[in-house]
Amino acid sequence: MGKGRLEAFSDGVLAIIITIMVLEMKVPHGVEIAALKPLFPVLLSYLLSFIYIGIYWNNHHHMLHAAKRVSGAVMWANLHLLFWLSLIPFVTGWMGENNFASVPTALYGVVLFLSAIAYWILQSVIVREHGGDTILAQTSKLKIRISPVLYVAAIVCAFYVEWLAGALYALVALMWLVPDRRIERALGEH
Amino acid sequence: MGKGRLEAFSDGVLAIIITIMVLEMKVPHGVEIAALKPLFPVLLSYLLSFIYIGIYWNNHHHMLHAAKRVSGAVMWANLHLLFWLSLIPFVTGWMGENNFASVPTALYGVVLFLSAIAYWILQSVIVREHGGDTILAQTSKLKIRISPVLYVAAIVCAFYVEWLAGALYALVALMWLVPDRRIERALGEH
Amino acid sequence: MGKGRLEAFSDGVLAIIITIMVLEMKVPHGVEIAALKPLFPVLLSYLLSFIYIGIYWNNHHHMLHAAKRVSGAVMWANLHLLFWLSLIPFVTGWMGENNFASVPTALYGVVLFLSAIAYWILQSVIVREHGGDTILAQTSKLKIRISPVLYVAAIVCAFYVEWLAGALYALVALMWLVPDRRIERALGEH
Amino acid sequence: MGKGRLEAFSDGVLAIIITIMVLEMKVPHGVEIAALKPLFPVLLSYLLSFIYIGIYWNNHHHMLHAAKRVSGAVMWANLHLLFWLSLIPFVTGWMGENNFASVPTALYGVVLFLSAIAYWILQSVIVREHGGDTILAQTSKLKIRISPVLYVAAIVCAFYVEWLAGALYALVALMWLVPDRRIERALGEH
Repeated sequence: MGKGRLEAFSDGVLAIIITIMVLEMKVPHGVEIAALKPLFPVLLSYLLSFIYIGIYWNNHHHMLHAAKRVSGAVMWANLHLLFWLSLIPFVTGWMGENNFASVPTALYGVVLFLSAIAYWILQSVIVREHGGDTILAQTSKLKIRISPVLYVAAIVCAFYVEWLAGALYALVALMWLVPDRRIERALGEH
Repeated sequence: MGKGRLEAFSDGVLAIIITIMVLEMKVPHGVEIAALKPLFPVLLSYLLSFIYIGIYWNNHHHMLHAAKRVSGAVMWANLHLLFWLSLIPFVTGWMGENNFASVPTALYGVVLFLSAIAYWILQSVIVREHGGDTILAQTSKLKIRISPVLYVAAIVCAFYVEWLAGALYALVALMWLVPDRRIERALGEH
Repeated sequence: MGKGRLEAFSDGVLAIIITIMVLEMKVPHGVEIAALKPLFPVLLSYLLSFIYIGIYWNNHHHMLHAAKRVSGAVMWANLHLLFWLSLIPFVTGWMGENNFASVPTALYGVVLFLSAIAYWILQSVIVREHGGDTILAQTSKLKIRISPVLYVAAIVCAFYVEWLAGALYALVALMWLVPDRRIERALGEH
Repeated sequence: MGKGRLEAFSDGVLAIIITIMVLEMKVPHGVEIAALKPLFPVLLSYLLSFIYIGIYWNNHHHMLHAAKRVSGAVMWANLHLLFWLSLIPFVTGWMGENNFASVPTALYGVVLFLSAIAYWILQSVIVREHGGDTILAQTSKLKIRISPVLYVAAIVCAFYVEWLAGALYALVALMWLVPDRRIERALGEH
């Protein structure tokens, strides 16, 4: 089974997720600069989620590049990941519209945590089908292990120091933005 | 006529359907965990429909893989299927927001039933154009015959025992999730 | 310049147009069958527009199949067509929600008329760049000439006998649904 | 790393941006021609933004055509561009619904300005990775330098003569609509 349609479908879903989030930024009624002020946290949460979806798309791209076959298991592990990512516009809107209040900020972390687990499952399925010695198995291990821990820390933080939870989400995003040179080099040699 | 654009268009429509359903989960006004409670049936119906669209996408993928040509008849049978599937976000929202009330739950089944018929028509058109002896004609016959019967049973149930209707929809989804090994093997040999 | 991206972009826009129209079907508040009654004209207008976008996608597919090169002129003629088609969800919603009232029904015809003109311009640009003797120049001439006339007739009708305007829109759609055998055969031989 | 998925993802995002803008044109409640009058500035701002997104898509197409490799830097420069472009539906809606009032019209220019900078960054990254002597480095230099200056002029204008700001946005769009023959010829020879 070709992986082209899996990529096309995932690209479509991710492109829609990243774009419909902006619909949460409702056009304000006033025409003064002050009318934009309540939108600032919404814009901030949109930016954060935009970067997260961008990271997932980027890594998804790399991961499937390494895969050769697409089985039914890969397809459903992929849909499972897309399900959690599709909830990001909802939690982004809730967090942004409520100025990073405790419960919405914690729920944002829960969805990020479950997305990370889903990504890890998808990667495990691909690695299992291609043998344990692939490029995938060697790289990003650290990032993949640390991220869920930081999400849990942020979820706990959200109930005590809200801004710290937000900072932790930004930190994880930054960590992933730094390119994993190894996978790029490995694929380049390939 | 190439089947590439038919696949691309169908992927696009299915990706949009699966993603805009999440827009029915309106961001709540409160910031307490309790504010999420009325969203639980909406999330549940979203999850169910997400799985259904995933199954349709997966099977659509398989079915077109087996097809070689795309005639005008195939194109319109495909659009007919997409029409009924495009109504799923509407019935999902109505069912979820009304806590699986009788009429919305029955209507959900009606749209699933009509989608199943449309899928069966599309398959028949492809089988007819490729001869009766293709891979398609041999497989999934049981599932395709049982599903509409179970949908009708669920529609009737919805007016007496609402939760049973929901359980039947989940059962059909589960039945389709179990991979049809025969088609995978047949295509693998091919 | 490759035509692949032009097709992909057009497919994307058409897939979104055909799917967001369903968002005009707002989930009703009641849970009785009666709550669906005011949605019936909305569903009817959605079905009509779904078929129209399907026809445009189908013909667009054929037309670009015949084209070899994509110049800047083709690209902008294509965007011009997509602009008018992107207004279809708006006029569909207005017509459907107002039970096929005169002005909305006439405006629906105006957008169909301008889309038809834009399609004719796109075809002319492609024919001009590939010489006057291509497959395109021979086919569908009648349909392309009659459609705008029928749209104008429907626009006038909308102010006197509203249902006749709707019937004329349905008639034009039906006329296009009947496959143009010549182009299929010509491409088949090709 | 292949550039196919980058193009597909960008096409998807641009197709969604160009189409969801039309959702800002809310279906009016009245059925008279007068009910459309307040929508006229919304339609005008939609048309302007439609042309802008069309120009960006067209140029993006050309630019990536000239690129051979897609590095992590290109990918993120591209996502950065898509981020600013994704804000265009928001500023388009704000400007259109408020009849081109000063602050919304200025903000529209700010987003266009930042999109232009993001486009320039993306181009610089591609040029740097392919050497300074590529097709890209020779062309459109004038347009790319003049556009941000005109955007700044329009932003200032918006606070004094609002219609002049709108006229300047239209002028920049027109300037880009005129095809850059050199790049077309260069690619044609190539």
